[in-house]
This record gives sequence, structure tokens and C-alpha cells, in this order.
Amino acid sequence: MTNLLQNSNFLRACRREAVDHTPIWLMRQAGRYMPEYRAIRAKHTMLDVIRTPELAAEITLQPINAFGMDAAIIFSDILPPLVGMGLELEFVKGEGPVIYNPISTTADIEKLQTPPAEENMGFTLEAIRLVTAELTPRGVPLIGFAGAPFTLASYAIEGGSSKNYEKTKALMYQFPEAWDMLMRKLAIVQADYLRKQAQAGASALQLFDSWAGLALGTQDYVRYIRPYNQLIFTELEKANVPTINFSTGTAHYLDEVAACGGTVIGVDWRIPLDVAWEKVGYDRAVQGNLDPTVLLTEWEFVQERVDDVLGRVNGRSGHIFNLGHGIFPTVPTDTVKRLVAYVQENTQR
Amino acid sequence: MTNLLQNSNFLRACRREAVDHTPIWLMRQAGRYMPEYRAIRAKHTMLDVIRTPELAAEITLQPINAFGMDAAIIFSDILPPLVGMGLELEFVKGEGPVIYNPISTTADIEKLQTPPAEENMGFTLEAIRLVTAELTPRGVPLIGFAGAPFTLASYAIEGGSSKNYEKTKALMYQFPEAWDMLMRKLAIVQADYLRKQAQAGASALQLFDSWAGLALGTQDYVRYIRPYNQLIFTELEKANVPTINFSTGTAHYLDEVAACGGTVIGVDWRIPLDVAWEKVGYDRAVQGNLDPTVLLTEWEFVQERVDDVLGRVNGRSGHIFNLGHGIFPTVPTDTVKRLVAYVQENTQR
Repeated sequence: MTNLLQNSNFLRACRREAVDHTPIWLMRQAGRYMPEYRAIRAKHTMLDVIRTPELAAEITLQPINAFGMDAAIIFSDILPPLVGMGLELEFVKGEGPVIYNPISTTADIEKLQTPPAEENMGFTLEAIRLVTAELTPRGVPLIGFAGAPFTLASYAIEGGSSKNYEKTKALMYQFPEAWDMLMRKLAIVQADYLRKQAQAGASALQLFDSWAGLALGTQDYVRYIRPYNQLIFTELEKANVPTINFSTGTAHYLDEVAACGGTVIGVDWRIPLDVAWEKVGYDRAVQGNLDPTVLLTEWEFVQERVDDVLGRVNGRSGHIFNLGHGIFPTVPTDTVKRLVAYVQENTQR
Repeated sequence: MTNLLQNSNFLRACRREAVDHTPIWLMRQAGRYMPEYRAIRAKHTMLDVIRTPELAAEITLQPINAFGMDAAIIFSDILPPLVGMGLELEFVKGEGPVIYNPISTTADIEKLQTPPAEENMGFTLEAIRLVTAELTPRGVPLIGFAGAPFTLASYAIEGGSSKNYEKTKALMYQFPEAWDMLMRKLAIVQADYLRKQAQAGASALQLFDSWAGLALGTQDYVRYIRPYNQLIFTELEKANVPTINFSTGTAHYLDEVAACGGTVIGVDWRIPLDVAWEKVGYDRAVQGNLDPTVLLTEWEFVQERVDDVLGRVNGRSGHIFNLGHGIFPTVPTDTVKRLVAYVQENTQR
């Protein structure tokens, strides 16, 4: 069974080995575009679903059973680990995540707890065990994930989503010691959480630094983000599974992103994949990078853009097909079905 | 008087000539961070102020009189030209701009008018005449501006601000002929409007493509945006004044941005200025690029970051100091005052 998993196309691509076909999965593949998902969410809040291992496991499996992606990703969200650290989180309908007691002072940061993942995120670790019991015999790997320290810090400081990250950056610029303490605490909690996900059965681990590049320029990334992401990737070497380092808006400093670590570098849709891979270096695998908006168009155009991405791989080993960011809730399921089949069938060697 | 203006540090920097000091102005310098501005806006709506030449002129002069920037920029917004094209625009408090009849079909695009600027934006042209009557004798140049076709199209199609530009991109991808018609109409209206601003007295013209890089990757920029921005810059050669080509989130394809045209390339805060200038080419002037968030911190940190930007100029001619995007309403006026004085005094040669 372990061999079946280790020989899966997804894990082989992570290791840049030859594959039978290019593996494909989609960020947010278990999500609102699926009627099966909406049926569950109609009866349960976001946090309830995340905290109920049976429901999270069921949702995780939905796209695999419907479309046959090459990897599953555990259903959760990047923000719940903040709850055990002391932050009051709610997902408010139509508004997105809200944190009712955002961080604003050094004292707030000192008070933050760093509970071990079994205590803080036990429900997700249990969901991972349930999913892998089902998927491992089928040879389908499960990806665990966590949010990167900067992205989490931005929610914790702004109290929710943000346009300009003003409070986050003002704190970062003016109180470098407090920033360091906050980022270290987040890095410790996330590294521990990711390692425990691997122990629970996850075959690969993805770190999401979703807002890094939209919020910070090159110099700030290197000074205020890179050391903490590095800390996490160094720590994850102990987990002995491939890691995926994903960020958006970082096209102009992908080399610095790659310097943080990661077996695979996740590439967003803003840069051609061949240009990105050259910047990242061919000693890494890459994941991406179809523009998610393309899935809102007719199949002929989708196919043209998929062909473009695949063409840029130029026969190299080490490409995992994905979108350049999460799938939109408005994408037709039929398009997803065709996309998965098309990539798997048209890349057979 | 004309000589006084032509010899201003701002216009000399646009032409990459030697200057007495590095000229500085700030995007949104006439805006909410100033109490004088808030006093006027307390009594008038945004559209009323824009449509009343005396008020727009007064607001334009406020920062010049208070802080002595090296150039003024006419007070207006990028969206009002859409009104005469047939779109119903309102600035809704707390929500931003709303367009009540957004574009969704080819028929909507066919119906769009392309009225000449004297009809459509006569109030702003009149405001320019009022401001230049005041500023030209003082040797202070006035910058006219307009929104670039893509950025305007995104508002016109989404009906307001957008996070993912889904509708805009779906239309662009699926209906390339309708997209071309829309972008051409916008380019014609904007080029005409910009030329008339120069005729009314503006000494330089800035094109704002604020959302280009956040919305589109390199390939899409080249295919769906560049031809129309090029059309505008080619048309503006007739205006015989320097042009500034500003965009954000385009750090990884600044060479393609520069290929659209522009005497000066506006650089956002996401990329170090020296790296940007190298990509743009030293045959162009550059404008930028302090991170606007830095102005929310204490002066010592502001100074450190200003020194960093100035240091990257490395003695070259052709740098205009600015922020990398608009100033935030929460910036203390004292910081703005110190910033302007600091740049002007510390770059004297």
C-alpha cells in the first residue's frame, strides 16, 4: 500500500521522477463549486465542518470521487490554528473571516499561546486519519496544509481580510522585535501542525503564503518574511515528505521565495510557467499555473490555455498541474471534469 | 513664464536633464489626509467637487500651498469620463465607486458613446485653466491624468471595485472582438481627454493602469492591454508634453509596460527602484517608489526608507520622487511636510 502511494504520479512528480501522466489537483478543489459541498454547508457552518472530522473527510473525498484528481487536500482553512493561540475567529456570511480581538500591541503578542497541534487542531489530524484510511489503499496521496506566518499575521492584526495591510506593515516596520516574536510564534505553531499532519498520514505538505506578494515588495519579503518561512521548511525536513511552497504576487522575486525552501514551488497565474521555472531553478519541481478565471470560459479556450501551460513544461520531469490560485465557486463542474481528464489523458507517455 | 515652467525641476527630470534637487509629488496628494480637503468634502459630494471647477482647482492647490511639492496634479478621478460614454456612476460613501448599469454584452459596448472631452469633461479642463493661471507664474507644473483602458473597463464591467476581475476577464477571453471594441472606444476617449488637458495647460500627463498587474499575467497584458495603451501613448506624442506611464503589480513585466510608451515609467513599491530602472531601460525617466505604508510610521523609519530609494538612483538624471501608489488618508500631515522638505533639501546638487 505504501508503495502504491509512493509510486503515485503526484509524489513522483514532487521528486521530479518520470510519470505516467502529469498529475493534477486544484486548489480549493473541495469547495463551493460542487453541489455535494454546498449541500453539506447548507446545514453546517464553516467552522463546524472543519471541526467535525467525518464531515471534513467527506468533503475532502468529494472531488476525488467525482473527478479523479491525482491528489486530495484535507478540507480545512488556514485560520483555525489561530483560535488555540487566543484569537476569536468567525467566518461571517458574505464578509469572510473576522477576528474579534485582533492583535495591536506587544502585550497582545506576548499573550499568544503556542499549543501543540494535537490540542489545537486535533479535529483536522483526525480527519486526515479518516481520509488516508480511505485513500491510501487506492494509491491517492493526501496533501496537508497550513498558512504561512505573514498571511496569518495579516489576518490576526487587521482583524480580517485587508486591501492594503496598513496595520500589519505599520507594526512590522515600527516594532521589529514584536514582529519577530509574532512571526516566530506563528512559525512554531505552523511547523508543528504541519509535521503532525504528516504523522497523521498526509503524504505532502503545502504552505500557503497567499498575500505575501500583494502586501510586500522584494526587500520587505527578504527581511520580514523569508526567515520565518525558512524556519518552517527547515523544521519540515524532519517530516520526510515533499513540501510545496505556494505564494501569489511574488513573480518578480520567485528566486527569494524558492530560497525559503520547499520541494515544489507553487507558481501563481501571473507569470508564464517556463519563466517561473527558470527563476526557481530546475532542481525544484513546480506546481501550477492556469489562471483560475479561464475556467469560467468555454472549453475551447480552456483547452488552449491548458495546452499553453503544458507546452511550457517542455518535457521536463517535476510538473504538477494546478491553477495559479483557488478555483472560483462559479466554475461549472463539467469544466472541472473535462480539465482533469484532459490533463491526465493528453500527457501520457 | 513658460521658461520658468520648462525649467522646473519636475519637467527637467522628465526629460532626464540635470536638476537642482530631485522633484517630488505624491499620488493623491490632494486628498483626505488634509484637513482643508476634508472641510470641502464635508459640504460636497465627490462628483460635485469634480464637476465644480473652482472647487477642484482649490483642492488641487491645497497641497502645493501647504507643502510645496514640485508639481500639482489636477483634482479629479479616473471614472468620470465613463459618464458621458453612457455609464451611471456614483461614489457611494464607504463603498467606493458604483456603476449602476455595468457592461455585459456586445450590444452594451456598441451603445457606448465616445464624446469629445470638451463635452464630457469640460469641468476638469476648466479646472486645469484655473489652476495653471495660478501656478504657471510660480513655475509649478500641473499634471493632467486619465485612467488606462483596462482599469476603466474593469470598473465598467464589474460595476465597481473588484477582487478577482472575473467578469472582465471572462468577457476579454471569450469575446475578443467585443473586448477590442471596448478597449478602442476607451482608448479614443482617454487619448482625446489627455490631449485636451495638455491644451488646457497641463504640463505633463499621467496614465493610471492601477489594476493591470493585479488582474492579468504577462501574456494577457501583452495581448489584451498593451496594444491599447500603446495607441494612447502614440496619440499623445502630438500633445508634445512628457507622459507618465503608471501601473501597479507589473514588476515582473515592467519591460512590457515600458514598451507601451511614456516619457516616464511610474514604478510601484513592490520592486527596488534600481532593479525597476534596469528593466525599464535608462533611456526613460522613472517615478517612485516609496511604499505608502511607510508614511504611517515614525520619521526615523520614513527617512531610512527615503534614503534607500534615493540611494538606488545612484546619481542618475531622470528620477521623480513619489510614492509607489496613492497616499493613505491616515497619514499625518506633518510626515508629508517633512518628506517633501527632506527630499528637496537632501538631493541638492
